[in-house]
Amino acid sequence: MCSSKYVFLAAVYIIIEFTQLGSSHNEIHREEHFVEKSPYETVKFPTMNPKPLGLVQDEDNRYTPNWDSLDSRPLPTWYDEAKFGIFIHWGVFSVPSFGSEWFWINWQGVKNPKYIEFMNKNYPPDFTYPEFGPMFTAEFFEPNQWAEILQSSGAKYVVLTSKHHEGYTLWPSKYSWNWNAMDVGPKRDLVGDLANAIRNHTDLKFGLYHSLYEWFHPLYLQDRENNWETQEFVKSKTMPELYEIVNKYEPSVIWSDGDWEPEDKYWNSTDFIAWLYNDSPVKNEVVVNDRWGRGASCKHGDIYTCTDRFNPGTLQLHKWENCFTIDKKSWGFRRNAMLSDYYSTPDLLKEMVTTISCGGNMLLNVGPTHYGQIPPIYEERLRQIGQWLNINGEAIYGSRPWIYQNDTSTPDVWYTKGKSSKELLLSDPVYAIILQWPKSGVIELTAPVATVSTQVTFLGYSGQTKWMVSSPGIRVNFPSKSKLSNDWAWVLRLDNLIY
Amino acid sequence: MCSSKYVFLAAVYIIIEFTQLGSSHNEIHREEHFVEKSPYETVKFPTMNPKPLGLVQDEDNRYTPNWDSLDSRPLPTWYDEAKFGIFIHWGVFSVPSFGSEWFWINWQGVKNPKYIEFMNKNYPPDFTYPEFGPMFTAEFFEPNQWAEILQSSGAKYVVLTSKHHEGYTLWPSKYSWNWNAMDVGPKRDLVGDLANAIRNHTDLKFGLYHSLYEWFHPLYLQDRENNWETQEFVKSKTMPELYEIVNKYEPSVIWSDGDWEPEDKYWNSTDFIAWLYNDSPVKNEVVVNDRWGRGASCKHGDIYTCTDRFNPGTLQLHKWENCFTIDKKSWGFRRNAMLSDYYSTPDLLKEMVTTISCGGNMLLNVGPTHYGQIPPIYEERLRQIGQWLNINGEAIYGSRPWIYQNDTSTPDVWYTKGKSSKELLLSDPVYAIILQWPKSGVIELTAPVATVSTQVTFLGYSGQTKWMVSSPGIRVNFPSKSKLSNDWAWVLRLDNLIY
Amino acid sequence: MCSSKYVFLAAVYIIIEFTQLGSSHNEIHREEHFVEKSPYETVKFPTMNPKPLGLVQDEDNRYTPNWDSLDSRPLPTWYDEAKFGIFIHWGVFSVPSFGSEWFWINWQGVKNPKYIEFMNKNYPPDFTYPEFGPMFTAEFFEPNQWAEILQSSGAKYVVLTSKHHEGYTLWPSKYSWNWNAMDVGPKRDLVGDLANAIRNHTDLKFGLYHSLYEWFHPLYLQDRENNWETQEFVKSKTMPELYEIVNKYEPSVIWSDGDWEPEDKYWNSTDFIAWLYNDSPVKNEVVVNDRWGRGASCKHGDIYTCTDRFNPGTLQLHKWENCFTIDKKSWGFRRNAMLSDYYSTPDLLKEMVTTISCGGNMLLNVGPTHYGQIPPIYEERLRQIGQWLNINGEAIYGSRPWIYQNDTSTPDVWYTKGKSSKELLLSDPVYAIILQWPKSGVIELTAPVATVSTQVTFLGYSGQTKWMVSSPGIRVNFPSKSKLSNDWAWVLRLDNLIY
Amino acid sequence: MCSSKYVFLAAVYIIIEFTQLGSSHNEIHREEHFVEKSPYETVKFPTMNPKPLGLVQDEDNRYTPNWDSLDSRPLPTWYDEAKFGIFIHWGVFSVPSFGSEWFWINWQGVKNPKYIEFMNKNYPPDFTYPEFGPMFTAEFFEPNQWAEILQSSGAKYVVLTSKHHEGYTLWPSKYSWNWNAMDVGPKRDLVGDLANAIRNHTDLKFGLYHSLYEWFHPLYLQDRENNWETQEFVKSKTMPELYEIVNKYEPSVIWSDGDWEPEDKYWNSTDFIAWLYNDSPVKNEVVVNDRWGRGASCKHGDIYTCTDRFNPGTLQLHKWENCFTIDKKSWGFRRNAMLSDYYSTPDLLKEMVTTISCGGNMLLNVGPTHYGQIPPIYEERLRQIGQWLNINGEAIYGSRPWIYQNDTSTPDVWYTKGKSSKELLLSDPVYAIILQWPKSGVIELTAPVATVSTQVTFLGYSGQTKWMVSSPGIRVNFPSKSKLSNDWAWVLRLDNLIY
Repeated sequence: MCSSKYVFLAAVYIIIEFTQLGSSHNEIHREEHFVEKSPYETVKFPTMNPKPLGLVQDEDNRYTPNWDSLDSRPLPTWYDEAKFGIFIHWGVFSVPSFGSEWFWINWQGVKNPKYIEFMNKNYPPDFTYPEFGPMFTAEFFEPNQWAEILQSSGAKYVVLTSKHHEGYTLWPSKYSWNWNAMDVGPKRDLVGDLANAIRNHTDLKFGLYHSLYEWFHPLYLQDRENNWETQEFVKSKTMPELYEIVNKYEPSVIWSDGDWEPEDKYWNSTDFIAWLYNDSPVKNEVVVNDRWGRGASCKHGDIYTCTDRFNPGTLQLHKWENCFTIDKKSWGFRRNAMLSDYYSTPDLLKEMVTTISCGGNMLLNVGPTHYGQIPPIYEERLRQIGQWLNINGEAIYGSRPWIYQNDTSTPDVWYTKGKSSKELLLSDPVYAIILQWPKSGVIELTAPVATVSTQVTFLGYSGQTKWMVSSPGIRVNFPSKSKLSNDWAWVLRLDNLIY
Repeated sequence: MCSSKYVFLAAVYIIIEFTQLGSSHNEIHREEHFVEKSPYETVKFPTMNPKPLGLVQDEDNRYTPNWDSLDSRPLPTWYDEAKFGIFIHWGVFSVPSFGSEWFWINWQGVKNPKYIEFMNKNYPPDFTYPEFGPMFTAEFFEPNQWAEILQSSGAKYVVLTSKHHEGYTLWPSKYSWNWNAMDVGPKRDLVGDLANAIRNHTDLKFGLYHSLYEWFHPLYLQDRENNWETQEFVKSKTMPELYEIVNKYEPSVIWSDGDWEPEDKYWNSTDFIAWLYNDSPVKNEVVVNDRWGRGASCKHGDIYTCTDRFNPGTLQLHKWENCFTIDKKSWGFRRNAMLSDYYSTPDLLKEMVTTISCGGNMLLNVGPTHYGQIPPIYEERLRQIGQWLNINGEAIYGSRPWIYQNDTSTPDVWYTKGKSSKELLLSDPVYAIILQWPKSGVIELTAPVATVSTQVTFLGYSGQTKWMVSSPGIRVNFPSKSKLSNDWAWVLRLDNLIY
Repeated sequence: MCSSKYVFLAAVYIIIEFTQLGSSHNEIHREEHFVEKSPYETVKFPTMNPKPLGLVQDEDNRYTPNWDSLDSRPLPTWYDEAKFGIFIHWGVFSVPSFGSEWFWINWQGVKNPKYIEFMNKNYPPDFTYPEFGPMFTAEFFEPNQWAEILQSSGAKYVVLTSKHHEGYTLWPSKYSWNWNAMDVGPKRDLVGDLANAIRNHTDLKFGLYHSLYEWFHPLYLQDRENNWETQEFVKSKTMPELYEIVNKYEPSVIWSDGDWEPEDKYWNSTDFIAWLYNDSPVKNEVVVNDRWGRGASCKHGDIYTCTDRFNPGTLQLHKWENCFTIDKKSWGFRRNAMLSDYYSTPDLLKEMVTTISCGGNMLLNVGPTHYGQIPPIYEERLRQIGQWLNINGEAIYGSRPWIYQNDTSTPDVWYTKGKSSKELLLSDPVYAIILQWPKSGVIELTAPVATVSTQVTFLGYSGQTKWMVSSPGIRVNFPSKSKLSNDWAWVLRLDNLIY
Repeated sequence: MCSSKYVFLAAVYIIIEFTQLGSSHNEIHREEHFVEKSPYETVKFPTMNPKPLGLVQDEDNRYTPNWDSLDSRPLPTWYDEAKFGIFIHWGVFSVPSFGSEWFWINWQGVKNPKYIEFMNKNYPPDFTYPEFGPMFTAEFFEPNQWAEILQSSGAKYVVLTSKHHEGYTLWPSKYSWNWNAMDVGPKRDLVGDLANAIRNHTDLKFGLYHSLYEWFHPLYLQDRENNWETQEFVKSKTMPELYEIVNKYEPSVIWSDGDWEPEDKYWNSTDFIAWLYNDSPVKNEVVVNDRWGRGASCKHGDIYTCTDRFNPGTLQLHKWENCFTIDKKSWGFRRNAMLSDYYSTPDLLKEMVTTISCGGNMLLNVGPTHYGQIPPIYEERLRQIGQWLNINGEAIYGSRPWIYQNDTSTPDVWYTKGKSSKELLLSDPVYAIILQWPKSGVIELTAPVATVSTQVTFLGYSGQTKWMVSSPGIRVNFPSKSKLSNDWAWVLRLDNLIY
């Protein structure tokens, strides 16, 4: 079960709704004074994040450029309901496509021997990274095809690396002349083309990743030498670009990154976010993450990403996101990755389910090739996840964490709570997502407390499910595996539990 | 069930072993005079192919360069027992990696608009195909890694395109100067490197594909203009190369192709094969296919390949091979292929099973990238087939066609016959390979006639199998799907049938 | 003879020194109030430019950022004495090396069909100009070799295109990331390397050309759309770069260009020049030209360049420079230029002589190749000019315009005035530079008025020269051509004329 | 004066025509038995080469494939009269354009450190020479422009490297697939295109250089390993190509090279030449040189080239050719050659004059760039030579060696003998070509013995020439240098000398 520094908040549930349960659920503790601020129960959607003090705004009802004010903004509804997004790492690093998207810094920054050897073996001695630019050809990039694949995955939003730490912009930035996708390489506005395809052909939200820092930008290096007391880089490059992409592409997500060296004061982050919340064309629906300066991560912003592949395993107070990769070692496509380097679909479903049970969204990353194709091994996983969601999506989309995240007695069972769609007096359904097929054909769940009217159903199974009360909890018989609609992660819907 | 021009041969079985069966198996006919020559029963392994007249050799016990003699050679044992090989299409066509490995002829021969548009869009106007050569970099080619992947598939041999119709040789041919993998592109002996890895790290046999013709070789074009009355191309290019690869790499398979324009007389094919059978370093184990000149296909050679993806669905008199592709449309890797362009593993197992039931081998093709990687989507299918074979291989390797190839009453059930490994008087086992899970959980097989001592077992299942006689045939209860070791193509082993 | 809007100034001489001459020299007029400001006579070196009002500075003796003040600065001595410099046009345009260094704008700006056809024929359809960057290899660039060639030409300064209108900087500019010679192409600091070689191995002054505008810089285009009311481009790109090169390379010349669209107010030119004159590390010796904003050319700055290849043929009041090319049509190297596209050495000597006679300097341009070589056809002309100057340099270096620029009676004779190096009461020598060999062997010069002590000598000739008074003027017999040290442009030195 | 192993032949003249001269001309000796065989005097044109035994042919009047027969063929008239040809070295070596056209062998054969360093510095580590092929672009190759330049030089024939030792053919050879100018690089038939331009626009003869050996051809290397006892290379590559170019382009010169390792027996040279003389389409006018196998050079063939830049300085018995370069060190264009690496025009005229005086032709080499341009520095020399020939050509074209080749008393004076074009009884004129301008203005020539009717004229000078008898010989006054039409190598025509 969950255990976390944030668990005090979850205790709210217990006090109100769960007192009859014993103390066996040992990670849940009470914290009375938070009763009114339960993120999932008391506070209504879309206010996922707890706002103990209410909105902090000035007299004109505007956010002010400081964290107290910015952090008081309610999370736009759509994001928490979406649960599942696709991250796309694409850039000039997709050309060497070796090691990871951190190719440049590994090669010329830390001088990793593996990268140096790769360059020595395959390129002239004075080859430079920007010279990879013209090879980023994207000749097979069909944005509508990408849109169809993304849609098929069941994801509800997509986040594209508009600019990674290499500084190359996937849109024709005025501030990145001759180091962008229109001037060198693809010769098209990759951001705009994908945005249009997504918006015209899917119901996904379109978001943008943006790296604040650029490893080798000389003005950034100069500002660093000046102990961040100058901001030439911020003022002439990274901030103008951020404003540019918001105005031009109206992204629903700004996924900031590369913030960790100086503090947010250097970056002017709060100015930007205040503008974004008050005046930008996306002020109503935009969601920003937490990477806005040294120390900001896991502390400020609409959603917390904390570390890459963050998956605490316990309910989190604040809305968070697990950005996860299909390739175990890299966000960008690696040409020499083998099958064993990719997570399997059940691996990914497990990651998704544990994330969502604990209040997170999963942002699952794919790395397209330099020629513009989402490799079939990625596509296969995306479509398989989509097939699973097609059957089991009601346990995911729009769900909330339940009072328990996972089961005490049976491992690999995780819970979410849905919304009753019926007019009747049914309580909201609870979903038990069972990651492992029980060898015995019977599963014992300790968490759910059944009533006489409790109903137990397998999603994607039209037959009757046999079950019985087994204090505490229930026992459920599995039907023949061949009758169920999916091969992994079977979902039990529980209606009319006691709570 | 099977129906074929070759079925007269299969009738042999019926006469001897099967007379009590009714005429319901309507595609089986008797042909008495072949009684002694049944390819799978009477004639011992390795003499898969029927040799009604015995060896046709000269006084020195040597084959003579004509088909009567060459066709009389017994098929080397290993080949028929191997059943499953991997075909690898790799070459300069892996650089454009568009359309198919027939890129050059589509582009500049038949001027297919799709290819012309691709070139117009991406290359300077006078770009030529040989200029792709330097881009065939193969920088990630790890032959040992390939060997491991191939081994994992359960295949018993591999056939690499030493030279495709483009004429580029994957080895440093003396006769293809500056148009081979040592001089241009990879700068290594791809054939030799893979041969060594296969031989050092696996038990697979190593074979070579070789195209007789080369679309654009000027001497070939000249010979064609001379109505094949000159042989400049044969004498200075294609035949010297064939001898060169046999002497240098000692391939166990010569998979000839590109033969179809002139007759074998032009190619000097029979001279070459006579040398191969009499004097070459691989005379004992080499296997050649049937593509040795116009009219030869499906008529001469150790094995018949007839057409690409040949799968007649009926028992064949002569040993044959189904060369099949994972990519539905191409043998070479296509950079823009999507997931739907690849056969799934169950598709491929079905192809394998139907092929082997009817006496064929399956040669399954993969297309590596220009940078030397077997794409993970291929690797995944190969490993999954290997996992299946790991459990079910006894129904495949060394098997022979049974008297029936598939079942009359239940579709998608195919049979093979194994060899009894016991000292006792058990007859050889028969395997029923069931491609579709029966919805009812019970399968009815008409072909097998049970006895009191008949045993019915699922491969990869340790439990008892419930079955009953169901005249004609048997009914078998399927265990819970979750108890079986594989998700596709379940194999029933039947011991002590009547026949 | 000369005729010009500026000739009124030359009239000064006549009034003071030349009254005895008749009015036949009709282009000379009096302008009494300029008597004190004769650029070459009354005002001492280095104050070449007339400064009627004296220095215009603030109370701290500093120049203020306006033209009245800046234009009052005396011209540094060295420049007027140098007379002859070499211009070097080198950049990414040296890669296509077709048409001219204005390749990009011709191709994609005005869409000149010749350039479009060149690109269509030789490059993929979507090739972009920045993709030429990596091909600017400069692998044979030997700065010391260049220095030796430049020195051999007799030039006294060199001006290198630090950045042309394409925006690519030949030094590693912090403001032109990934579009400079360190990041893309040569991977070296071309400016620094040449500066060092020039300073270590020659006595030439090192100067830099710099284009204010950049044809395709998106911020420049944006400022233009804003009617020059914004200055984003100026502030983040072109001005920071100008300061950067001055501080980093301390150039003796700033040769500004690309100024002509907006006025100097947009460019902040006067601020820059005021800093240059007051505070820069080169404040004492730097010379700037006149291209600092629309309307500034031929009006402001240390030297006037007016138009390219400016050669008015008459004495100019203000110090000026004729920037001239060896290639008749291009400043950058053109790969397909033929011999007839290059001026011959006598052509160039004529250009030099006419320029210097009228008070100008000649800045003669060469275009190195993309691989870093000064093509031998250029080198040949430079060395031949150097040989000529080796003999005749005293008529050039440190010379001043004479009262006449060319001769009335004989065409192609041009005058300069030297300085007497003797302690005696000799007047300064006058040089008659005779561009055409007289067919008769005798030349008649009207301008010089001989005295009894007049001496007439051919430079580079040790024999006695026969001459006689021929009122007005003198007649001079030419010695045998084979006795003279040069094949073109013979120089007569005249000492002790009347004036 | 001349001194040579062949001088015995020249003695012929003395006996017949020159007895009155003293013995001061010490290099001339008598050899009576050759009186009838003087190459230039007794034997008529075109039989330049002495044929003491007459034609050696079979009963059908055909040459037989042995040197006795082949060497007996008279030299076609046109060649000896032409005197001056242009050699063009162009090929893939024009791409690295470094060191010399022997780039490949220096780099990968002898592993010259200079070349290895060049490659290490500029190319990926495993770059191969054939990968330079696609970079041989020839985009500016305008054959008509070349024809005009060649014509302007005054040359009467041109010899193009159809194939150099690298094996790459400048025509689309059937025997060099994908290693020829149509398949890789220029994508055009460079040989055919130049042949057409030369024939359509000039009166030059068109000839072809052809290298027998190819440094790295694997069949050549194999034949070498077999001690030249196999001829696979000869039969499948080099000889088929020779026949191909003769039949296809009908060259007037076959300039063979690369012959020196095995003897002519290996090469089948005499078979080829016999076919060329008997049956080829150019049998009447073709001229072959002497490089047809180890030991053949300077011994067999129509003309002797002996060594590169062969210029013995003495009259040669057998017709010979001095193949000379404008670049002092290389035949192919070197990108980093400086001016000092090129011979000046006077240097080249001296080479031409000394060559022709001694009975040779000069074949002057130019090296075009990989992009198809004859560099202007070459063009300048060619045009200057052409201007000189325009004035002085009568001393060159169709001339014969005189009894003296150079003068005893005055160095740098060389003689030729012309043909009287007058009906009168004038003897043939003798030309004294004076390479150095006499400082005194007077030249003393010992060789010519004047008569009362002797006339002395400067070519290109319309005035009277002052001269006097100065026993032995004459003294001639030079006119003013400015009156002569050329700046180098002045020619005196002497009519009606005694001899």
